[in-house]
Amino acid sequence: MSSTPTPRTRVVREPQRAVYDRDAVNQILDEAFVCHVGFVADGQPYVIPTSYGRDGDVLYIHGSAASRMLRHLDKGVPVCITVTLVDGLVLARSVFNHSMNYRSVVILGTATLVDDPAEKLAALRAISEHILPHRWDDSRLPNEKELKATSVLRLPINEFSAKVRVGPPVDDEEDYSFPTWAGVIPLEMNSGTPIPDDRCEQELPAYLQNYARKKKS
Amino acid sequence: MSSTPTPRTRVVREPQRAVYDRDAVNQILDEAFVCHVGFVADGQPYVIPTSYGRDGDVLYIHGSAASRMLRHLDKGVPVCITVTLVDGLVLARSVFNHSMNYRSVVILGTATLVDDPAEKLAALRAISEHILPHRWDDSRLPNEKELKATSVLRLPINEFSAKVRVGPPVDDEEDYSFPTWAGVIPLEMNSGTPIPDDRCEQELPAYLQNYARKKKS
Repeated sequence: MSSTPTPRTRVVREPQRAVYDRDAVNQILDEAFVCHVGFVADGQPYVIPTSYGRDGDVLYIHGSAASRMLRHLDKGVPVCITVTLVDGLVLARSVFNHSMNYRSVVILGTATLVDDPAEKLAALRAISEHILPHRWDDSRLPNEKELKATSVLRLPINEFSAKVRVGPPVDDEEDYSFPTWAGVIPLEMNSGTPIPDDRCEQELPAYLQNYARKKKS
Repeated sequence: MSSTPTPRTRVVREPQRAVYDRDAVNQILDEAFVCHVGFVADGQPYVIPTSYGRDGDVLYIHGSAASRMLRHLDKGVPVCITVTLVDGLVLARSVFNHSMNYRSVVILGTATLVDDPAEKLAALRAISEHILPHRWDDSRLPNEKELKATSVLRLPINEFSAKVRVGPPVDDEEDYSFPTWAGVIPLEMNSGTPIPDDRCEQELPAYLQNYARKKKS
Protein backbone atom coordinates (compact mmCIF):
# COMPACT_ATOMS: atom_id res chain seq x y z
CA MET A 1 0.00 0.00 0.00
CA SER A 2 1.37 3.36 -0.95
CA SER A 3 0.78 6.56 0.93
CA THR A 4 0.67 10.03 -0.56
CA PRO A 5 3.33 12.24 0.97
CA THR A 6 2.23 15.51 2.50
CA PRO A 7 4.22 18.70 1.95
CA ARG A 8 5.74 17.90 5.34
CA THR A 9 6.87 14.37 4.50
CA ARG A 10 7.77 14.78 0.84
CA VAL A 11 11.48 14.09 0.55
CA VAL A 12 13.27 17.21 -0.67
CA ARG A 13 16.89 16.09 -0.95
CA GLU A 14 17.69 13.14 -3.20
CA PRO A 15 13.99 12.54 -3.98
CA GLN A 16 14.90 9.42 -5.98
CA ARG A 17 15.62 7.78 -2.64
CA ALA A 18 12.13 8.42 -1.32
CA VAL A 19 9.84 5.57 -0.36
CA TYR A 20 6.20 6.12 0.50
CA ASP A 21 5.16 2.49 0.53
CA ARG A 22 3.73 1.35 3.84
CA ASP A 23 5.05 -2.20 3.61
CA ALA A 24 8.58 -0.99 2.95
CA VAL A 25 8.27 1.45 5.84
CA ASN A 26 7.01 -1.30 8.13
CA GLN A 27 9.97 -3.49 7.21
CA ILE A 28 12.35 -0.76 8.33
CA LEU A 29 10.37 -0.15 11.50
CA ASP A 30 10.38 -3.86 12.27
CA GLU A 31 14.11 -4.36 11.75
CA ALA A 32 15.15 -1.42 13.93
CA PHE A 33 14.16 -1.06 17.56
CA VAL A 34 15.50 2.32 18.60
CA CYS A 35 13.85 5.50 17.38
CA HIS A 36 14.64 9.15 17.93
CA VAL A 37 11.65 11.14 19.15
CA GLY A 38 11.60 14.85 18.41
CA PHE A 39 9.34 17.27 20.23
CA VAL A 40 9.29 20.97 21.03
CA ALA A 41 9.34 22.60 24.45
CA ASP A 42 9.47 26.38 24.78
CA GLY A 43 10.50 26.66 21.14
CA GLN A 44 13.47 24.36 21.64
CA PRO A 45 13.56 21.02 19.82
CA TYR A 46 14.55 17.94 21.80
CA VAL A 47 15.53 14.59 20.35
CA ILE A 48 15.46 11.58 22.66
CA PRO A 49 16.36 7.99 21.79
CA THR A 50 14.01 5.29 22.94
CA SER A 51 12.76 1.86 22.00
CA TYR A 52 9.39 1.33 20.38
CA GLY A 53 6.89 -1.24 19.22
CA ARG A 54 4.47 -1.39 16.35
CA ASP A 55 0.94 -2.73 16.34
CA GLY A 56 -0.44 -2.47 12.83
CA ASP A 57 -0.52 1.20 11.91
CA VAL A 58 0.32 2.46 15.38
CA LEU A 59 3.73 3.06 16.90
CA TYR A 60 4.08 2.88 20.68
CA ILE A 61 6.80 4.29 22.89
CA HIS A 62 6.87 4.29 26.64
CA GLY A 63 7.35 7.03 29.08
CA SER A 64 10.87 6.43 30.17
CA ALA A 65 11.84 8.47 27.14
CA ALA A 66 9.11 10.94 27.49
CA SER A 67 9.40 12.63 30.82
CA ARG A 68 10.42 16.01 29.48
CA MET A 69 7.93 15.54 26.72
CA LEU A 70 5.14 14.41 29.00
CA ARG A 71 5.37 17.56 31.03
CA HIS A 72 4.27 19.34 27.89
CA LEU A 73 1.63 16.84 26.98
CA ASP A 74 -1.91 18.00 27.30
CA LYS A 75 -4.13 16.65 24.59
CA GLY A 76 -1.24 15.29 22.62
CA VAL A 77 2.07 16.63 21.50
CA PRO A 78 3.36 17.09 17.93
CA VAL A 79 6.25 14.70 17.44
CA CYS A 80 8.55 13.43 14.78
CA ILE A 81 9.71 9.86 15.22
CA THR A 82 12.69 8.88 13.12
CA VAL A 83 14.12 5.40 12.71
CA THR A 84 17.46 4.87 11.00
CA LEU A 85 19.35 1.78 9.90
CA VAL A 86 22.88 2.25 8.63
CA ASP A 87 23.88 -0.42 6.11
CA GLY A 88 27.24 0.71 4.87
CA LEU A 89 29.79 3.34 4.00
CA VAL A 90 29.76 4.24 0.32
CA LEU A 91 33.25 5.22 -0.81
CA ALA A 92 33.34 7.07 -4.08
CA ARG A 93 36.40 8.35 -5.87
CA SER A 94 35.47 11.97 -5.15
CA VAL A 95 34.87 13.20 -1.63
CA PHE A 96 31.69 14.84 -2.90
CA ASN A 97 30.10 11.55 -3.98
CA HIS A 98 30.80 9.71 -0.77
CA SER A 99 27.60 8.56 0.85
CA MET A 100 26.03 5.98 3.09
CA ASN A 101 23.73 3.12 2.46
CA TYR A 102 20.88 3.51 4.91
CA ARG A 103 17.19 3.09 5.42
CA SER A 104 15.32 5.68 7.44
CA VAL A 105 11.71 6.43 8.27
CA VAL A 106 10.24 9.71 9.41
CA ILE A 107 6.79 9.73 10.98
CA LEU A 108 5.03 12.97 11.85
CA GLY A 109 1.96 13.27 13.99
CA THR A 110 0.49 13.86 17.40
CA ALA A 111 1.46 11.48 20.16
CA THR A 112 -1.19 10.87 22.78
CA LEU A 113 -1.15 9.17 26.16
CA VAL A 114 -2.65 5.70 26.27
CA ASP A 115 -5.24 5.69 29.06
CA ASP A 116 -7.00 2.40 28.48
CA PRO A 117 -5.32 -0.26 30.69
CA ALA A 118 -5.85 -3.03 28.13
CA GLU A 119 -4.29 -1.00 25.31
CA LYS A 120 -1.46 0.00 27.63
CA LEU A 121 -0.65 -3.60 28.46
CA ALA A 122 -0.93 -4.60 24.81
CA ALA A 123 1.36 -1.72 23.85
CA LEU A 124 4.00 -2.72 26.39
CA ARG A 125 3.79 -6.26 25.09
CA ALA A 126 4.18 -4.96 21.53
CA ILE A 127 7.31 -3.02 22.53
CA SER A 128 8.75 -6.05 24.34
CA GLU A 129 7.99 -8.47 21.51
CA HIS A 130 9.33 -5.97 19.00
CA ILE A 131 12.71 -5.88 20.71
CA LEU A 132 12.88 -9.54 21.65
CA PRO A 133 10.19 -11.99 20.57
CA HIS A 134 9.16 -14.55 23.22
CA ARG A 135 10.61 -12.55 26.09
CA TRP A 136 7.27 -11.26 27.42
CA ASP A 137 5.99 -14.73 28.22
CA ASP A 138 9.30 -15.64 29.83
CA SER A 139 9.36 -12.69 32.26
CA ARG A 140 7.53 -11.67 35.39
CA LEU A 141 4.71 -9.57 33.96
CA PRO A 142 4.03 -5.98 35.04
CA ASN A 143 1.95 -5.50 38.16
CA GLU A 144 -0.50 -2.68 38.72
CA LYS A 145 2.02 -0.44 40.46
CA GLU A 146 4.50 -0.83 37.62
CA LEU A 147 1.84 -0.15 35.02
CA LYS A 148 0.91 3.06 36.84
CA ALA A 149 4.56 4.13 36.85
CA THR A 150 4.82 3.64 33.11
CA SER A 151 3.47 6.06 30.54
CA VAL A 152 2.75 4.85 27.06
CA LEU A 153 2.36 7.08 24.03
CA ARG A 154 0.68 6.16 20.77
CA LEU A 155 1.47 7.65 17.40
CA PRO A 156 -0.61 6.66 14.39
CA ILE A 157 1.60 5.87 11.41
CA ASN A 158 -0.32 8.05 8.96
CA GLU A 159 2.02 10.78 7.79
CA PHE A 160 5.35 9.23 6.93
CA SER A 161 8.12 8.85 4.43
CA ALA A 162 11.20 6.75 4.11
CA LYS A 163 14.55 7.23 2.45
CA VAL A 164 16.61 4.35 1.21
CA ARG A 165 20.01 4.24 -0.43
CA VAL A 166 21.47 0.96 -1.63
CA GLY A 167 24.25 -0.09 -3.94
CA PRO A 168 27.69 1.02 -5.04
CA PRO A 169 29.04 4.57 -5.26
CA VAL A 170 28.18 6.68 -8.26
CA ASP A 171 31.07 8.81 -9.45
CA ASP A 172 31.28 11.46 -12.10
CA GLU A 173 32.54 9.86 -15.29
CA GLU A 174 35.80 11.80 -15.29
CA ASP A 175 36.61 10.58 -11.78
CA TYR A 176 36.69 6.87 -12.58
CA SER A 177 40.35 7.13 -13.50
CA PHE A 178 41.21 8.53 -10.08
CA PRO A 179 43.44 5.91 -8.45
CA THR A 180 41.65 4.97 -5.24
CA TRP A 181 39.67 2.04 -3.94
CA ALA A 182 35.92 2.56 -4.41
CA GLY A 183 33.01 0.52 -3.20
CA VAL A 184 30.98 -0.22 -0.09
CA ILE A 185 31.96 -1.21 3.44
CA PRO A 186 28.90 -3.07 4.72
CA LEU A 187 27.84 -2.36 8.29
CA GLU A 188 25.56 -4.43 10.44
CA MET A 189 24.60 -4.63 14.08
CA ASN A 190 25.54 -8.01 15.52
CA SER A 191 24.94 -9.61 18.87
CA GLY A 192 27.72 -11.04 20.97
CA THR A 193 27.73 -13.91 23.43
CA PRO A 194 24.98 -13.41 26.03
CA ILE A 195 26.32 -12.60 29.50
CA PRO A 196 24.23 -14.09 32.32
CA ASP A 197 24.08 -12.02 35.49
CA ASP A 198 25.62 -13.30 38.72
CA ARG A 199 22.41 -14.77 40.04
CA CYS A 200 21.19 -16.36 36.82
CA GLU A 201 20.77 -20.12 37.18
CA GLN A 202 18.94 -20.81 33.93
CA GLU A 203 20.25 -22.18 30.68
CA LEU A 204 20.16 -19.80 27.73
CA PRO A 205 16.78 -20.35 26.03
CA ALA A 206 16.53 -20.90 22.28
CA TYR A 207 14.97 -17.50 21.63
CA LEU A 208 18.11 -15.79 22.94
CA GLN A 209 20.53 -17.67 20.76
CA ASN A 210 21.87 -15.80 17.74
CA TYR A 211 19.86 -12.67 18.35
CA ALA A 212 19.57 -10.78 15.10
CA ARG A 213 17.36 -8.03 13.72
CA LYS A 214 17.46 -8.84 10.04
CA LYS A 215 14.74 -11.20 8.91
CA LYS A 216 16.34 -14.27 7.40
CA SER A 217 14.81 -14.75 4.00
CA MET B 1 36.42 18.78 32.18
CA SER B 2 32.93 18.79 33.56
CA SER B 3 30.14 21.00 32.35
CA THR B 4 27.27 22.31 34.44
CA PRO B 5 23.95 21.14 33.04
CA THR B 6 21.38 23.78 32.26
CA PRO B 7 17.71 23.28 33.12
CA ARG B 8 17.37 22.17 29.49
CA THR B 9 20.10 19.53 29.58
CA ARG B 10 19.73 18.25 33.12
CA VAL B 11 18.73 14.60 32.89
CA VAL B 12 15.29 14.13 34.42
CA ARG B 13 14.70 10.38 34.12
CA GLU B 14 17.23 8.03 35.72
CA PRO B 15 19.49 10.92 36.77
CA GLN B 16 22.09 8.45 38.07
CA ARG B 17 22.84 7.69 34.43
CA ALA B 18 23.70 11.30 33.64
CA VAL B 19 27.14 12.30 32.47
CA TYR B 20 28.18 15.92 32.10
CA ASP B 21 31.86 15.31 31.55
CA ARG B 22 33.15 16.69 28.27
CA ASP B 23 35.74 13.99 27.72
CA ALA B 24 33.17 11.24 28.20
CA VAL B 25 30.83 13.06 25.83
CA ASN B 26 33.58 13.42 23.24
CA GLN B 27 34.31 9.68 23.43
CA ILE B 28 30.69 8.93 22.56
CA LEU B 29 30.68 11.52 19.79
CA ASP B 30 33.89 10.07 18.38
CA GLU B 31 32.72 6.45 18.38
CA ALA B 32 29.40 7.15 16.66
CA PHE B 33 29.13 8.81 13.28
CA VAL B 34 25.41 9.24 12.73
CA CYS B 35 23.46 11.84 14.65
CA HIS B 36 19.80 12.79 14.67
CA VAL B 37 19.22 16.50 14.16
CA GLY B 38 16.02 17.97 15.56
CA PHE B 39 14.68 21.32 14.45
CA VAL B 40 11.33 23.07 14.31
CA ALA B 41 9.49 24.32 11.24
CA ASP B 42 6.04 25.85 11.57
CA GLY B 43 5.72 24.43 15.08
CA GLN B 44 6.40 20.90 13.85
CA PRO B 45 9.51 19.09 15.05
CA TYR B 46 11.59 17.25 12.45
CA VAL B 47 14.30 14.72 13.16
CA ILE B 48 16.76 13.91 10.39
CA PRO B 49 19.63 11.45 10.50
CA THR B 50 22.96 12.60 9.17
CA SER B 51 26.65 12.09 9.62
CA TYR B 52 28.79 14.57 11.49
CA GLY B 53 32.31 15.50 12.42
CA ARG B 54 33.86 17.08 15.46
CA ASP B 55 36.61 19.66 15.63
CA GLY B 56 37.39 20.38 19.26
CA ASP B 57 34.28 21.83 20.82
CA VAL B 58 32.39 22.24 17.55
CA LEU B 59 30.17 19.73 15.80
CA TYR B 60 29.76 20.00 12.04
CA ILE B 61 27.05 18.57 9.82
CA HIS B 62 26.59 19.15 6.15
CA GLY B 63 23.67 20.29 4.19
CA SER B 64 22.50 17.09 2.62
CA ALA B 65 20.57 16.55 5.81
CA ALA B 66 19.58 20.09 6.25
CA SER B 67 17.59 21.15 3.24
CA ARG B 68 14.28 21.44 5.05
CA MET B 69 16.11 22.97 7.94
CA LEU B 70 18.10 25.38 5.80
CA ARG B 71 14.96 26.86 4.35
CA HIS B 72 14.22 28.04 7.86
CA LEU B 73 17.70 29.15 8.60
CA ASP B 74 18.20 32.84 8.88
CA LYS B 75 20.69 33.79 11.51
CA GLY B 76 20.87 30.31 12.91
CA VAL B 77 18.34 27.73 13.88
CA PRO B 78 17.75 26.16 17.32
CA VAL B 79 18.64 22.50 17.06
CA CYS B 80 19.04 19.44 19.18
CA ILE B 81 21.65 16.98 17.99
CA THR B 82 21.44 13.56 19.54
CA VAL B 83 23.94 10.74 19.17
CA THR B 84 23.11 7.25 20.38
CA LEU B 85 25.15 4.06 20.70
CA VAL B 86 23.30 0.89 21.64
CA ASP B 87 25.50 -1.56 23.52
CA GLY B 88 23.14 -4.29 24.56
CA LEU B 89 19.76 -5.59 25.60
CA VAL B 90 19.38 -5.85 29.35
CA LEU B 91 17.10 -8.73 30.24
CA ALA B 92 15.78 -8.60 33.76
CA ARG B 93 13.46 -11.11 35.39
CA SER B 94 10.59 -8.63 35.43
CA VAL B 95 9.37 -6.94 32.27
CA PHE B 96 9.48 -3.66 34.17
CA ASN B 97 13.22 -3.82 34.82
CA HIS B 98 14.19 -4.64 31.27
CA SER B 99 16.45 -1.99 29.83
CA MET B 100 19.20 -1.31 27.36
CA ASN B 101 22.84 -0.57 27.74
CA TYR B 102 23.48 2.54 25.73
CA ARG B 103 25.45 5.75 25.55
CA SER B 104 23.75 8.86 24.24
CA VAL B 105 24.59 12.53 23.96
CA VAL B 106 22.19 15.43 23.58
CA ILE B 107 23.54 18.79 22.44
CA LEU B 108 21.36 21.89 22.35
CA GLY B 109 22.20 25.10 20.65
CA THR B 110 21.96 27.26 17.58
CA ALA B 111 23.33 25.88 14.35
CA THR B 112 24.76 28.44 11.97
CA LEU B 113 25.88 28.28 8.36
CA VAL B 114 29.61 28.16 7.80
CA ASP B 115 30.44 30.95 5.34
CA ASP B 116 34.22 31.03 5.53
CA PRO B 117 35.61 28.82 2.73
CA ALA B 118 38.59 27.66 4.80
CA GLU B 119 36.39 26.64 7.73
CA LYS B 120 34.00 24.94 5.33
CA LEU B 121 36.74 22.85 3.80
CA ALA B 122 38.16 22.02 7.24
CA ALA B 123 34.69 21.04 8.42
CA LEU B 124 34.14 18.72 5.47
CA ARG B 125 37.51 17.17 6.13
CA ALA B 126 36.58 16.75 9.80
CA ILE B 127 33.36 14.96 8.81
CA SER B 128 35.22 12.74 6.36
CA GLU B 129 38.01 11.89 8.78
CA HIS B 130 35.49 11.30 11.53
CA ILE B 131 33.71 8.63 9.51
CA LEU B 132 36.79 7.11 7.91
CA PRO B 133 40.29 8.28 8.84
CA HIS B 134 42.73 8.59 5.91
CA ARG B 135 39.97 8.65 3.30
CA TRP B 136 40.17 12.39 2.61
CA ASP B 137 43.74 12.20 1.33
CA ASP B 138 42.90 9.17 -0.76
CA SER B 139 39.97 10.78 -2.62
CA ARG B 140 39.53 13.38 -5.30
CA LEU B 141 39.08 16.54 -3.24
CA PRO B 142 36.07 18.84 -3.57
CA ASN B 143 36.22 21.45 -6.30
CA GLU B 144 34.74 24.91 -6.09
CA LYS B 145 31.44 23.93 -7.67
CA GLU B 146 30.99 21.05 -5.23
CA LEU B 147 31.84 23.24 -2.29
CA LYS B 148 29.22 25.73 -3.40
CA ALA B 149 26.65 22.95 -3.61
CA THR B 150 27.36 21.85 -0.06
CA SER B 151 26.10 23.62 3.02
CA VAL B 152 27.88 23.12 6.30
CA LEU B 153 26.42 23.90 9.69
CA ARG B 154 28.36 24.43 12.90
CA LEU B 155 27.05 23.76 16.37
CA PRO B 156 29.19 24.67 19.37
CA ILE B 157 29.22 21.84 21.91
CA ASN B 158 28.42 24.04 24.88
CA GLU B 159 25.08 22.89 26.25
CA PHE B 160 25.07 19.14 26.47
CA SER B 161 24.47 16.07 28.54
CA ALA B 162 24.99 12.38 28.13
CA LYS B 163 23.25 9.33 29.48
CA VAL B 164 25.04 6.04 29.95
CA ARG B 165 23.80 2.69 31.17
CA VAL B 166 26.19 -0.20 31.60
CA GLY B 167 26.15 -3.53 33.37
CA PRO B 168 23.76 -6.31 34.25
CA PRO B 169 20.04 -6.04 34.93
CA VAL B 170 18.86 -4.93 38.35
CA ASP B 171 15.82 -6.79 39.56
CA ASP B 172 13.66 -6.32 42.61
CA GLU B 173 14.89 -8.70 45.31
CA GLU B 174 11.71 -10.77 45.28
CA ASP B 175 12.04 -11.40 41.55
CA TYR B 176 15.40 -13.17 41.66
CA SER B 177 13.65 -16.48 42.21
CA PHE B 178 11.64 -16.07 39.01
CA PRO B 179 12.81 -18.87 36.71
CA THR B 180 14.08 -17.10 33.61
CA TRP B 181 17.41 -16.34 32.01
CA ALA B 182 18.67 -12.87 32.99
CA GLY B 183 21.65 -10.93 31.78
CA VAL B 184 22.86 -8.89 28.84
CA ILE B 185 22.92 -9.55 25.11
CA PRO B 186 25.79 -7.39 23.84
CA LEU B 187 25.23 -5.52 20.59
CA GLU B 188 27.85 -4.00 18.38
CA MET B 189 28.04 -2.59 14.90
CA ASN B 190 30.47 -4.57 12.77
CA SER B 191 31.80 -4.13 9.29
CA GLY B 192 31.58 -6.84 6.67
CA THR B 193 33.87 -7.61 3.77
CA PRO B 194 34.38 -4.50 1.62
CA ILE B 195 32.67 -4.74 -1.78
CA PRO B 196 34.61 -3.01 -4.58
CA ASP B 197 32.49 -1.46 -7.29
CA ASP B 198 32.58 -2.80 -10.85
CA ARG B 199 35.17 -0.33 -12.04
CA CYS B 200 37.49 -0.48 -9.03
CA GLU B 201 40.98 -1.62 -9.99
CA GLN B 202 42.77 -0.85 -6.75
CA GLU B 203 43.76 -3.19 -3.95
CA LEU B 204 42.00 -2.62 -0.65
CA PRO B 205 44.19 -0.16 1.29
CA ALA B 206 45.20 -0.83 4.89
CA TYR B 207 42.94 1.89 6.30
CA LEU B 208 39.89 0.04 4.95
CA GLN B 209 40.72 -3.29 6.51
CA ASN B 210 38.79 -4.22 9.65
CA TYR B 211 36.84 -0.99 9.82
CA ALA B 212 35.62 -0.52 13.38
CA ARG B 213 34.32 2.37 15.44
CA LYS B 214 35.41 1.28 18.89
CA LYS B 215 38.85 2.51 19.84
CA LYS B 216 41.05 -0.46 20.56
CA SER B 217 42.57 0.10 23.99
